[in-house]
Amino acid sequence: MNLLILDGYDAERGALLSEKLGSGWTVTEGRHADPREILASRLADADAVVTQYWAEGLPPAPRLRLLQLPGAGFDAIDFEAVPAGCAVCNVYEHEIGISEYIVAALLEREVRIARMDAALRRGEWRHGFVLGAPLHGELHGRTVGFLGYGRIAREAARRLAPFGVRIAARTRSPDPSGPGAELVADLAGIDRLDDMLPSVDYLVIACPLNDATRGLIGARRLALLGPAAMVVNVSRGPIVDEEALYAACRDGTIGGAIIDTWYRYPDPTGGVGQSCLPSRFPFETLANVVMTPHASGWSAGLLDRRWSVIADNLTRLERGEPLRNLLRPPGGMLPSAGAP
Amino acid sequence: MNLLILDGYDAERGALLSEKLGSGWTVTEGRHADPREILASRLADADAVVTQYWAEGLPPAPRLRLLQLPGAGFDAIDFEAVPAGCAVCNVYEHEIGISEYIVAALLEREVRIARMDAALRRGEWRHGFVLGAPLHGELHGRTVGFLGYGRIAREAARRLAPFGVRIAARTRSPDPSGPGAELVADLAGIDRLDDMLPSVDYLVIACPLNDATRGLIGARRLALLGPAAMVVNVSRGPIVDEEALYAACRDGTIGGAIIDTWYRYPDPTGGVGQSCLPSRFPFETLANVVMTPHASGWSAGLLDRRWSVIADNLTRLERGEPLRNLLRPPGGMLPSAGAP
Repeated sequence: MNLLILDGYDAERGALLSEKLGSGWTVTEGRHADPREILASRLADADAVVTQYWAEGLPPAPRLRLLQLPGAGFDAIDFEAVPAGCAVCNVYEHEIGISEYIVAALLEREVRIARMDAALRRGEWRHGFVLGAPLHGELHGRTVGFLGYGRIAREAARRLAPFGVRIAARTRSPDPSGPGAELVADLAGIDRLDDMLPSVDYLVIACPLNDATRGLIGARRLALLGPAAMVVNVSRGPIVDEEALYAACRDGTIGGAIIDTWYRYPDPTGGVGQSCLPSRFPFETLANVVMTPHASGWSAGLLDRRWSVIADNLTRLERGEPLRNLLRPPGGMLPSAGAP
Repeated sequence: MNLLILDGYDAERGALLSEKLGSGWTVTEGRHADPREILASRLADADAVVTQYWAEGLPPAPRLRLLQLPGAGFDAIDFEAVPAGCAVCNVYEHEIGISEYIVAALLEREVRIARMDAALRRGEWRHGFVLGAPLHGELHGRTVGFLGYGRIAREAARRLAPFGVRIAARTRSPDPSGPGAELVADLAGIDRLDDMLPSVDYLVIACPLNDATRGLIGARRLALLGPAAMVVNVSRGPIVDEEALYAACRDGTIGGAIIDTWYRYPDPTGGVGQSCLPSRFPFETLANVVMTPHASGWSAGLLDRRWSVIADNLTRLERGEPLRNLLRPPGGMLPSAGAP
């Protein structure tokens, strides 16, 4: 069996994967940007490809039976362009990192350790009780509303629950007996999204990007949030309307935003020296915005967990066993997993 | 009944307390620094005093039956100087704020959102996966060791558990069936403190300051910590030897420290304009130290929760009912609650 890894995250992975897979597999690494004849010859031989991207116009891949994504998001996969006999699978394993990021960001918004640290380094005790400072915030008693209640939201909810946080969620298919439902005080469908917005201190965007979710949070819905409410986006930027979010933060009609997933990205091949502001609006000028570079899930154990799942899936393919995290079965249609 | 509030945290409390207590109580507010004859006349009449400080040489308080602390720490109370017939009680209610602070500080140490934010504001994506950044840390899988396993440590452990954190604790009276013991993978007495130190990623100081705990963490024990381990002090500075902690942080023999409770404090009457560096050593020059001004428990709901308990205790005193949070019964000895 031939595995092609296209634009793999790091150079050691191919070797590690070869070890896990054993002698039945030959592993090749390449890039989408390779000369077309090289890419064509590699795709012609591939039984499985690990890649985040698939589009029309790629050279033919007649033997391809598994398109394995190395991450969770499949918005860069053109399913219609994937050969008919090929299954498409993704991997998750980022729930741990992303849920830690969410709780970290919410706690810092309340406790504001960085601000206290900066002051005390100058000898200023303005935030301490000794000089009768105002009290800082508590996460205790806050309401966190999730848009989407999949793996990430459930793991975040599980970590937030012991803080005395009230959890609300709006999801495509609300199931009162589904996983994690016992954590949610207010669970309903997307049709009741507007109901939830006035009640939340934090609106956490945790659904995939697709035609149903693009721009789902626009100016009208942002106006339903309270003036202290924060938008937290760890999913995909365009689920929240770029201009409307910037205006709401700039004008203080909401409390602000914690944004990990953006509207503009750097050239992946351009190196760390390049500069790329992540929006056409100057979020970087706003003090009520926390900006991180699509890194919430990019945490220590992620790659080991993901490549273990990928190795397992390749072994399953080899043995004809059911695949994990199937987004599209061979010859099948995209399941409705695309909605939030 | 006459209640005297000495050095009360804020001016509205007396009025609020009067409402809760009803007509049986007269509430007076004053300060330890008031002219002696005024302090003497107030203490002469007082059935109960709310104060954080009590020392030899105060004017007599012949009617005093309850010395009620407005906080948890009783290291500024000279129990031998308290009139024999007077009970001493404290209040907690800061477990929520302090446990939120602990989790916030640990998560930020791993995820490092502030660093990412500063870079992305300049258009730099060096911490994101798009440019193949190194992975940031995960709290998942870390070991947190508590010195002391009282209310604060238990509330922190309860919040840390869903993150997949391993909990260890050393406490004066380890009880495998006591509250919160089910969260602790490694629970033992203070005599086994040294055993715990090499295994922890975070050592959280959560015991009271007394003769048994002063300097308990000195140079020898700091050397038992691993080179990435962080000391987190939310209790009282002098439990950790000042010079040894500074040297360990400066020399990188430990990972660093997160310090909320200090060695030097500002003059409580000196106003926010004064400058007071919190140690005779320049912790403020170290990048691996997080410095906050004794504020971890100083959070939004704290005072309402505390004054509710105080009002309840005063009502119990009036009715002759058992008091809450008794540190010393009237005529009694200081219970051994002083050890960690």
